[in-house]
Amino acid sequence: MDPAEIRILAAGTALPGPPIDNATLGRRFGMDALWEQWVDVFIGTRSRHLALDLETGEQRDTLADLGERAGRHALATAGTDPAEIDLVILGTATPDSLMPATVNQIADRLGIDGVATYQLQSGCSGAVQALDLARQLLSTGRHRTALVLGGDVIAKHYDLSVDLHTVPPAELVNYVLFGDAAGAAVLSGDPAAGRTAVRTSFVQLVGLGRPPGQVLEWFGPVDRHSDRPSAREDYKAIEESVPELSEEILHRLLGDLGWKAAELTHLLPPQLSTQMTKRIVERLALSGAEEISCVGDTANTGNALVFFQLEQLLPRLVPGDRVAAIAVESSKWIKSGFALEHV
Amino acid sequence: MDPAEIRILAAGTALPGPPIDNATLGRRFGMDALWEQWVDVFIGTRSRHLALDLETGEQRDTLADLGERAGRHALATAGTDPAEIDLVILGTATPDSLMPATVNQIADRLGIDGVATYQLQSGCSGAVQALDLARQLLSTGRHRTALVLGGDVIAKHYDLSVDLHTVPPAELVNYVLFGDAAGAAVLSGDPAAGRTAVRTSFVQLVGLGRPPGQVLEWFGPVDRHSDRPSAREDYKAIEESVPELSEEILHRLLGDLGWKAAELTHLLPPQLSTQMTKRIVERLALSGAEEISCVGDTANTGNALVFFQLEQLLPRLVPGDRVAAIAVESSKWIKSGFALEHV
Repeated sequence: MDPAEIRILAAGTALPGPPIDNATLGRRFGMDALWEQWVDVFIGTRSRHLALDLETGEQRDTLADLGERAGRHALATAGTDPAEIDLVILGTATPDSLMPATVNQIADRLGIDGVATYQLQSGCSGAVQALDLARQLLSTGRHRTALVLGGDVIAKHYDLSVDLHTVPPAELVNYVLFGDAAGAAVLSGDPAAGRTAVRTSFVQLVGLGRPPGQVLEWFGPVDRHSDRPSAREDYKAIEESVPELSEEILHRLLGDLGWKAAELTHLLPPQLSTQMTKRIVERLALSGAEEISCVGDTANTGNALVFFQLEQLLPRLVPGDRVAAIAVESSKWIKSGFALEHV
Repeated sequence: MDPAEIRILAAGTALPGPPIDNATLGRRFGMDALWEQWVDVFIGTRSRHLALDLETGEQRDTLADLGERAGRHALATAGTDPAEIDLVILGTATPDSLMPATVNQIADRLGIDGVATYQLQSGCSGAVQALDLARQLLSTGRHRTALVLGGDVIAKHYDLSVDLHTVPPAELVNYVLFGDAAGAAVLSGDPAAGRTAVRTSFVQLVGLGRPPGQVLEWFGPVDRHSDRPSAREDYKAIEESVPELSEEILHRLLGDLGWKAAELTHLLPPQLSTQMTKRIVERLALSGAEEISCVGDTANTGNALVFFQLEQLLPRLVPGDRVAAIAVESSKWIKSGFALEHV
């Protein structure tokens, strides 16, 4: 079966708790109005949702909780019964446990059984990796209808007890940049099932010899007291590389399909922060393409982001629309993207 | 391209440090000769290798270290240059970090770049999931030569300071049952590249409504002091279910191919422990099939096991040989298997 005829039927998402705007976050951490201005100007992200309760510090939602909700929404919007699903793929950097894999807990809760499931350990390109994988597997004909999910919950790394006044800017940013969420989409190998075709998709590691731009560690009972830093980002490298890599991804998508940039009606750009997205969109200079972003409201929710963008996008598409979606993983530098066409 | 014509060219493995036999382990933990006998009779596993130094408690090897070594062995044995690899898949339950994904660090060290990489979060069926995935992706024609890896390093959960005398038997077993390792295999979509065809492979979640048989947790800086148990196994459920599921997997492999049980020349059974493997092999009653096992010497190395079995098996195959490999994941109950034919 031609992989360019795989259909994406619908997307759904799930956010934990209420939106937490910068003012609320600032109050919680005892930061002043100057800090809020700094966030507005340098980051631009306005709010996020957290699985943690800001007051009590209790984790109210797991990735399985959010994945189940997002999955239900996607299935309901697609009009697909869980019994029709014969492939489930989840991408995440922050599974609830090492075992069992969260994808299998989500499948269980949705009543999906007897099928192949995969969970990808991945950063910000994970949603695209999962979609690309689903597309390839559907094209073999072995599977018919896939539920693809992505999500992240940063609760185990989000320390509410820290004094942000003592934290260097590069670390301060993490408390503002990220948020929790999950998203899902239903894909079908039956061209008659829907009108949005995934024309192409790809994933490409380009990290040879490059130090990681992002490191996230986990601890076991043996090293739990280690003072090894649990999260590190090289924001300088990220700011230098991501816009450039985004441009390369766009050109590859267009080249693979023989499309012209001017033909794009919609763009789903990387969603690191409002400011970063703005810079990337400006650089890509796609005057005819409507930007579909979510990061201002959801913050960077890693593997969930693309599903928020798809959820906004899919109901708007009309025949002839052409969409480019771009995601860059800055942990070991992965270029990824896909293109849609509404038939 | 016909997925039944995908070739497996070679396998390679890597073990950390020296073999640690039960006597050595017993001495390290202050256990007596009675304990050793108990291990012999109930577990049967004779030795394991650990990334931890038994004396100092220092972790000498990472999963990336072991994966790199196993990858080099597999590539060298296959006569494949890393530059020919256009797909890398790693299965593990214990990645070195949450980000970057260990598969990308291994690719970097092997000089592999510009290709698609995937890391599966998985338990004991992970190696088969990775092989099955590679097979499907190679069959699309988009990729030509895959490096598939599997491995686990339990160092963060292997507490050398624990007093084993105070630990209940179900937990005691974990110190004996598991070991560290990585394995790798080279697969090709070119039927002329080798003579061992992967005739079929499958992965199937069957855990609906079943509590996990195995739980492995990770901690972040926020919950690092939590007294939540970091590892739990339901060995009763495992002992009851795994032999039965193994039988189902065998019958599915034979049924999918129209093979008779008597035609099998080799069997790669699940490798939980020597005793468990013995019971499964007896139950499967394949009189004509030579058993290929490693667990007595390597212990249960999770995602690496199947590669040890393949490393033993592949050089022995002669035209007409037919092989069945079975793996069961008992965290959320996944049946998996593949069948080979030497042409």
